[in-house]
Amino acid sequence: MKPPDLIQELRDPNTTKIVFLVADGLGGLPLTPGGLTELETARTPNLDDLAREGVSGLSIPVLPGITPGSGPGHLALFGYDPLEHRIGRGVLEALGINFPLERRDVAARGNFCTLDAEGKIKDRRAGRPSDERNREICQKLKSVRVPGVELFIEPVSEHRFVVVFRGEGLSANIEDTDPQAVGVAPLPAVARDEDSRRTAEFADRFVAEARRVLHAEPDANGVTLRGFARYPNIATMQEVYGLRCACLAVYPMYKGLARLVGMDILDAGHSLDEQVETLERVWDQYDFFFIHFKYTDKTGEDGDFAAKVRRIEELDGIVPRITRLKPDVLIVTGDHSTPSVMRSHSWHPVPTLLWGRNVRTDGVSEFSEKTCLQGGLGQFEAKYLMTLAMAHAGRLGKYGA
Amino acid sequence: MKPPDLIQELRDPNTTKIVFLVADGLGGLPLTPGGLTELETARTPNLDDLAREGVSGLSIPVLPGITPGSGPGHLALFGYDPLEHRIGRGVLEALGINFPLERRDVAARGNFCTLDAEGKIKDRRAGRPSDERNREICQKLKSVRVPGVELFIEPVSEHRFVVVFRGEGLSANIEDTDPQAVGVAPLPAVARDEDSRRTAEFADRFVAEARRVLHAEPDANGVTLRGFARYPNIATMQEVYGLRCACLAVYPMYKGLARLVGMDILDAGHSLDEQVETLERVWDQYDFFFIHFKYTDKTGEDGDFAAKVRRIEELDGIVPRITRLKPDVLIVTGDHSTPSVMRSHSWHPVPTLLWGRNVRTDGVSEFSEKTCLQGGLGQFEAKYLMTLAMAHAGRLGKYGA
Repeated sequence: MKPPDLIQELRDPNTTKIVFLVADGLGGLPLTPGGLTELETARTPNLDDLAREGVSGLSIPVLPGITPGSGPGHLALFGYDPLEHRIGRGVLEALGINFPLERRDVAARGNFCTLDAEGKIKDRRAGRPSDERNREICQKLKSVRVPGVELFIEPVSEHRFVVVFRGEGLSANIEDTDPQAVGVAPLPAVARDEDSRRTAEFADRFVAEARRVLHAEPDANGVTLRGFARYPNIATMQEVYGLRCACLAVYPMYKGLARLVGMDILDAGHSLDEQVETLERVWDQYDFFFIHFKYTDKTGEDGDFAAKVRRIEELDGIVPRITRLKPDVLIVTGDHSTPSVMRSHSWHPVPTLLWGRNVRTDGVSEFSEKTCLQGGLGQFEAKYLMTLAMAHAGRLGKYGA
Repeated sequence: MKPPDLIQELRDPNTTKIVFLVADGLGGLPLTPGGLTELETARTPNLDDLAREGVSGLSIPVLPGITPGSGPGHLALFGYDPLEHRIGRGVLEALGINFPLERRDVAARGNFCTLDAEGKIKDRRAGRPSDERNREICQKLKSVRVPGVELFIEPVSEHRFVVVFRGEGLSANIEDTDPQAVGVAPLPAVARDEDSRRTAEFADRFVAEARRVLHAEPDANGVTLRGFARYPNIATMQEVYGLRCACLAVYPMYKGLARLVGMDILDAGHSLDEQVETLERVWDQYDFFFIHFKYTDKTGEDGDFAAKVRRIEELDGIVPRITRLKPDVLIVTGDHSTPSVMRSHSWHPVPTLLWGRNVRTDGVSEFSEKTCLQGGLGQFEAKYLMTLAMAHAGRLGKYGA
């Protein structure tokens, strides 16, 4: 029996409220070995208070040593096994632009490319058009029609776009048409199973029509498709936990990930302040609140240690406005680490604290990588965090008599 | 490969002895956040010695955040995955009164109820009869005969009883007949599969006959049945570990759980003193001894912090008599936490120590929730404790060459 099934079975109704404050890429590394991490450098009196009154630990997003993307990182935080539920590239791209994907859709990531007179790829990225040019080319592409299926074309950035095939009986087990090489023609869309044959034909037809529509383009006169994917068949958080869930995110990708697990996507403005204003406004209408803070990850990816420190301090500053609402459970964590010295996501466990009723405190009085190592939550798989939240919120009954 | 299979493959014969001293509901919480737990408050010089000489940690009974009942809690301690082996309510009730259930039996929990003239439920608990009245009504019920199946009726308490259907070819995939509501008639026993159809018919026949026999009862003139269940199909500890196992428990439920995994149930009297006397007497006849101490849980459920502290000190006092027997491995743990401030089982990890040969000591010199957090066993799933016991007892060979 898997945790979501178990929780569905054991959950008790309650009126308690759970807040997940997710600082993307929160965990870090010191600039020089033996030094302080970004979180250890930051002045975080409010987070330190929460750590002292709560219980801390380090969450392992997927498995030890595995660096997660945003998709698996967040699925785990929401209590889903990130190894069981995989989000295909096409779907992730669609989520990233907050496209309202339906369960019957097949999405693929598209690239504009430059084809020579023989139809061979000269430039896999069509000379990297600007985002504005991308939107113009996508506008042309929107005139493409394929009988038997509805098409949606949405720009992403530069040479990237998303194509969504909508209709009944579609299936996504299809090879990429991008040969990942120049000097060869794009590949046909090859169905890997019988169910996907019709969808592959639609894809081929779309690619052919796209070439026709784009033939006068100097660079972007062809397209390739990758990562055909369907919406994962995943129970909503309402179904699993019986919680009315609100997403207070600023970036489209995280709204998309929250929509995937059935949260209501609220207009949460463009800053932490506005996110918390929204939180205050809708406090009575929901049981679970996902507040996403992007900038700890962004500064980490920029390799800007000092900026990440400042962003952590900004996050710390907002904490009193959240605790003033008296959540029953407040969790502060990240979906993965993004050490600024690495300028990328990493596998390092993520500092996590749980503050609420019936916590067994642990002597941790500061929120940091090193102190969390001594915390009462130990090192745990992130997918158990929702179970812990439900338990501390008095929303889980006993397993077995 | 699951741990029991692995152990069955790797186990080495030996003459070493393992003692599990299980203090039910051992783990706790402070009365006020930041204070001392029951175990931290108790004076436990003997347990502290064991912790200093042994290795400590915190066991997670099922999964992080999951509160176990006694069944899953003990199955995990005995090395079985509590999510894989589920003990149905009917079986657990039968175990709770130490009914000698057989593998072919189907057991259900029965409730006496009050039916009105139209056969609708007026009171789901028949006015909560006394235990003595319960026994009298059960005595009447014992006259019920259902052709084709053997019946056993046993009182539990108040309005609760157990009915056991014994015969070949029975199956327990049957819906509850208790509608969990008043103003409606009890439901028929609906078989969820073909195999259970005959058993459901026996159940319906039993319920009808019960009404006939009880018709003159003022309150308890009807019965409902819930939690139809069969004995779980589980390998015995003798089969898995090659150990001759003795259960030294006082309460019927724990004898029942020990019987379920094939232990010999010894008459261990009514107190810790008598349990240890039995231990001394049968020391040469067994390899594994399960000593169950109920009162750390009972006082926790009563919400009596001070009494739980005293019970822990009582447990501590018995330790020298056990170590005097020179067990090769002595484990002190609980099946779950029962913080007296919560007055219930909880999900919090359980302080655990392992004392014996070849332990890697860890600097822990006191047995408590906080110190165990720093212990060499870390936080671990309880189902691995038997493997650790077997290893330290020199009873497990190498896996792979």
